[in-house]
Amino acid sequence: MIYAGVDVGGMSIKCCLATEEGKIITKGSFVTKEGITCAEMAEQTASYIKTLAKNAGIEEKEIVSVGMGTPGTVDGKKGMIVYSNNIKLDHAPIVKEMEKHLSCPVFVENDANAAALGEAVFGAAKGLKNVVLVTLGTGVGTGIVANGQMITGMGGAGAEGGHMVIKMGGEKCSCGNRGCFEAYASASALLKQTDKMVARHPDSLLASLWAEKGRVGIVPFDAAKAGDKAGETVIRNYVNYVAQGLVGLVNIFRPDVVLIGGGISNQGDYFIKKVSRRLNRIVYGSSINDRVKVKAAELKNDAGLLGAVALAVRAGNARA
Amino acid sequence: MIYAGVDVGGMSIKCCLATEEGKIITKGSFVTKEGITCAEMAEQTASYIKTLAKNAGIEEKEIVSVGMGTPGTVDGKKGMIVYSNNIKLDHAPIVKEMEKHLSCPVFVENDANAAALGEAVFGAAKGLKNVVLVTLGTGVGTGIVANGQMITGMGGAGAEGGHMVIKMGGEKCSCGNRGCFEAYASASALLKQTDKMVARHPDSLLASLWAEKGRVGIVPFDAAKAGDKAGETVIRNYVNYVAQGLVGLVNIFRPDVVLIGGGISNQGDYFIKKVSRRLNRIVYGSSINDRVKVKAAELKNDAGLLGAVALAVRAGNARA
Repeated sequence: MIYAGVDVGGMSIKCCLATEEGKIITKGSFVTKEGITCAEMAEQTASYIKTLAKNAGIEEKEIVSVGMGTPGTVDGKKGMIVYSNNIKLDHAPIVKEMEKHLSCPVFVENDANAAALGEAVFGAAKGLKNVVLVTLGTGVGTGIVANGQMITGMGGAGAEGGHMVIKMGGEKCSCGNRGCFEAYASASALLKQTDKMVARHPDSLLASLWAEKGRVGIVPFDAAKAGDKAGETVIRNYVNYVAQGLVGLVNIFRPDVVLIGGGISNQGDYFIKKVSRRLNRIVYGSSINDRVKVKAAELKNDAGLLGAVALAVRAGNARA
Repeated sequence: MIYAGVDVGGMSIKCCLATEEGKIITKGSFVTKEGITCAEMAEQTASYIKTLAKNAGIEEKEIVSVGMGTPGTVDGKKGMIVYSNNIKLDHAPIVKEMEKHLSCPVFVENDANAAALGEAVFGAAKGLKNVVLVTLGTGVGTGIVANGQMITGMGGAGAEGGHMVIKMGGEKCSCGNRGCFEAYASASALLKQTDKMVARHPDSLLASLWAEKGRVGIVPFDAAKAGDKAGETVIRNYVNYVAQGLVGLVNIFRPDVVLIGGGISNQGDYFIKKVSRRLNRIVYGSSINDRVKVKAAELKNDAGLLGAVALAVRAGNARA
């Protein structure tokens, strides 16, 4: 059985065909024009999937279902992109439009939620029913699987754990509130935190690496690993911010595993172990409950596609 | 069809028999001795249920199932009270023990989770699938229903939303961390906040009411309603604390309704409306999403019993 996955981004759309086990058979992407309409996007995506199938020697009728992950607020039940700042589509009936061009059912969900499902079905949380995936990137995305189901909330507006408040009255957040998890734990926040430390310690290794390598998240990690005090302080504080946000999610969901994705997770064990240690010190009932498991997400660049495939497999089988 | 509900407290156990619609037919409670064992508790509870039934002219075989809500960490799947500070039972196989004395299945869950299920099945959130219940009492309890299912977490250790951090480095919390929602939004925290304000404004109406009526949560509300500045400040800050914690839960779950229970909820609309207004100002995507509904919980004194009955109805029917 073959499933199609579609990962909709701001400037391009990735598609793949994969097996029920999440093995990608073929994949590719196409660039979308600015101001694309829902009908155009659907027509182009459906036709791209058909081309992928044809070139791989797969008949269209072998495709059981199509899963799509898109940014923003997605109402999976209605098959609708409710709002997306990224792809500029409002109240777009994407499922209905896609199904005009395909003979199999189509399912859509928010991409971060789909990515969490992907990790639970194919990735670092394979087979687990309670998973929290936190993606530390430009923002802080959260995707949550509880009791084996995605937490999408009313109208798909849920799973915005990046906008839990972790410091009332603190840093201003793009959402309009202050002190959100995202305002402290995103990769962008780490850059700002490094800026401040560099200004305070212009003679540190951190400051010279910042000047040399540019304003990138790897710099404070490199400085800290080299034993630079300023770098160590930035990373220690950042680890604490990540842990103080995660502790809320963990106390609520008590997941089988916490997965960390996004660019920062490329720091691997060095970062994951520090977060795990801090989190397990402050989690509720640490003396009586098992330790919280923290791991790096596994699906990396294919997270979006395999999340969409997981959605197709899950929803397709449920409907069949 | 008749269902039994059991609400286990630190010093007594309440039991009831009720219909599938949550109408209580008969109820009562008995005091438990200190150091009661799991086997004793099960034997006494089962025998009390039988007596209730007999006195109400109900045959034991008419009871379809029994639901129990107990404080602490409860592993519903294993039918086990894992840990409870309140009733001093560890790893207690309460379901197995109860079923020795009864001919119907028994189900157990944490009492706050059961209460949320009760509101979703019989109370203020009747028929809704996504409900967040926050109980503002000695602590801050959270019970969550998402996709129609209770969020219990691994081993039943979840739904401790009172221990989300809302102010890193802030007030010390009983759990060992700092800045938890509970440390700002519990009724106990409100008393401490009032203490501080009274010390700063000894000539306020707040201070004189505090001296006259004693150290009770109603005082700052009464002072605020009477237009006292000190009282107004206490309540404005407290409302903000409640909202800043709720916003995390709402952004994650985007529930159909947020219910507020516990003693503070007796302040009714005066309090609920203020919380709703503040919450809707800071919630994520307030310009595009529907307003978040905030209501007082409805089941009040019977919340524990009806939560247990809801559990019995739900689980009993699922198994039948």
